[in-house]
Amino acid sequence: MIRIGVDIGGTNIGMGIISSTEILHKSSESFSKDGGVSGCCDRIFAQAQALLQKCGYTLDDVDCVGAAVPGSVNRDRGIVINAYNLGFHDAPLREELQKRFADKIVDVLNDADAAANAELSGGVLKGMKTAVCITLGTGLGFGLIIDGKLFCGGMGHGTEGGHMIMKHNGYKCTCGDRGCAETLCSATALMIKTRRAVKGRTDSILWQNRRSLNAKVVFECAGRGDELALRIIDEYTDALSDYVASLMNLFDPEAVCVGGGISAAGELLFEPLVRKTDEKCFFKDHGQVLRAHFLNDAGIIGAVSEMKGE
Amino acid sequence: MIRIGVDIGGTNIGMGIISSTEILHKSSESFSKDGGVSGCCDRIFAQAQALLQKCGYTLDDVDCVGAAVPGSVNRDRGIVINAYNLGFHDAPLREELQKRFADKIVDVLNDADAAANAELSGGVLKGMKTAVCITLGTGLGFGLIIDGKLFCGGMGHGTEGGHMIMKHNGYKCTCGDRGCAETLCSATALMIKTRRAVKGRTDSILWQNRRSLNAKVVFECAGRGDELALRIIDEYTDALSDYVASLMNLFDPEAVCVGGGISAAGELLFEPLVRKTDEKCFFKDHGQVLRAHFLNDAGIIGAVSEMKGE
Repeated sequence: MIRIGVDIGGTNIGMGIISSTEILHKSSESFSKDGGVSGCCDRIFAQAQALLQKCGYTLDDVDCVGAAVPGSVNRDRGIVINAYNLGFHDAPLREELQKRFADKIVDVLNDADAAANAELSGGVLKGMKTAVCITLGTGLGFGLIIDGKLFCGGMGHGTEGGHMIMKHNGYKCTCGDRGCAETLCSATALMIKTRRAVKGRTDSILWQNRRSLNAKVVFECAGRGDELALRIIDEYTDALSDYVASLMNLFDPEAVCVGGGISAAGELLFEPLVRKTDEKCFFKDHGQVLRAHFLNDAGIIGAVSEMKGE
Repeated sequence: MIRIGVDIGGTNIGMGIISSTEILHKSSESFSKDGGVSGCCDRIFAQAQALLQKCGYTLDDVDCVGAAVPGSVNRDRGIVINAYNLGFHDAPLREELQKRFADKIVDVLNDADAAANAELSGGVLKGMKTAVCITLGTGLGFGLIIDGKLFCGGMGHGTEGGHMIMKHNGYKCTCGDRGCAETLCSATALMIKTRRAVKGRTDSILWQNRRSLNAKVVFECAGRGDELALRIIDEYTDALSDYVASLMNLFDPEAVCVGGGISAAGELLFEPLVRKTDEKCFFKDHGQVLRAHFLNDAGIIGAVSEMKGE
């Protein structure tokens, strides 16, 4: 039997046909948010049928369907509480998917929770009992593993570790509050910092790239020795190591796994992050800081990794 | 059968003879730290014998002994990793207690963990599955309830939620790092803030009390309308509500329970704390902010509340 993992993004629906933790086939298709939850589920069902057909399967071969969502999810009830990028509010996503996939097991969960599940099942958190997975992207995703399984919050809202307040009266966050970890540690935060810092700095390589700035460019410029880029990353890893050390102190986890686009920067990110976190941790023999194994496929894999599809 | 709950403080050993969650008899005796772990356990044993005799029991009536410690504890191994106030480092406290209490069940745990256990067994967290208990005193104690029981950290060091970093490059903390929650939210932090603020403020009631300042005095002055005291508490609850809201967002708990000496301040603390926390939480229907039921007895009760002594 196979499983269908779905990763609903702001513009595209990613999908994979999965056996164990291996993606056999995958597709990514743009979709319009105008159709709401129902339209989204129609698109998912059509995309699933096309993908199955393309690789010689039918719906009969499918055991279960899981969907990762960029927002807050009440997993027990299958409700998307809020997914601002999708315009979903108190949306019965599981029920809508269930209508289409009839007798299949259907699950919906937060995308960072899916990333944590993916790492736990076949990535760098494999076999661990206590671990945290954070994803640095548009926001700061947070997935918590306790007792060897995903902890989805005590009252069914999920865990919003990206909204741990790190600076009183800091930058305004998308959640409405100020100074959340997301405003300091997300890829968006890095880019806001960069755009501010680059103004008038005509001496920097960053300035030469000012029209095509993204996180990758910042790290590339740092790799080429650009002083401004190095300072930006230094300040960014100051904040990120405060956050990671806080997680180490709060949970005493075996590891904090860092994923999302920025983690692709490799040693330019991880060398200072690991060093600074180590200096700040309460216990000298704290858990490891690990680079996520799954990047773009984390949602697809993690959406179904808890389900026994074999 | 009865249980003996022990609360090892910096200067005194508190002890109670407990049936269910009720303390039948208790005693508090000063002790010298010079004797190390062995001397401390001798004192505990002597104090226990005296207390038992005083109320007509013998050791035969005792089922188990639990000791709460102001420091990091590896509970599985019964080792006090660090208790700076006691001068204990990698100290085999459980083994030493076991030698004296022979066939009794012996447990050692962190004092804030004990407070969380006490509230869970017979206090304001009773029956909850997910909750946090913080104690505001010399430091900031932190106890985490997950799945209806105490979570003592993933690698046996315990949870050090008081060392969540809330201000980059903030005040130096006892742990060696800077800007920990403890440097902003503990009773010590409130008093440091007060002593700084009161200088030269001869117009304030606080200044008139400058030779006998403590947290109780600060709240009393605020209760009498002293502007300076009100401002200090306003800033203090700004920080504390950042912290409590962060815990709400991280765990989605049914409640965050606030204990320790400062919680005795009542509405002068809890009215602004609850209001500001509510403004900052990610989810509108977040958990409750509750005042701890047990104050001085939390350690004694929580040290044995998990054990079935009846």
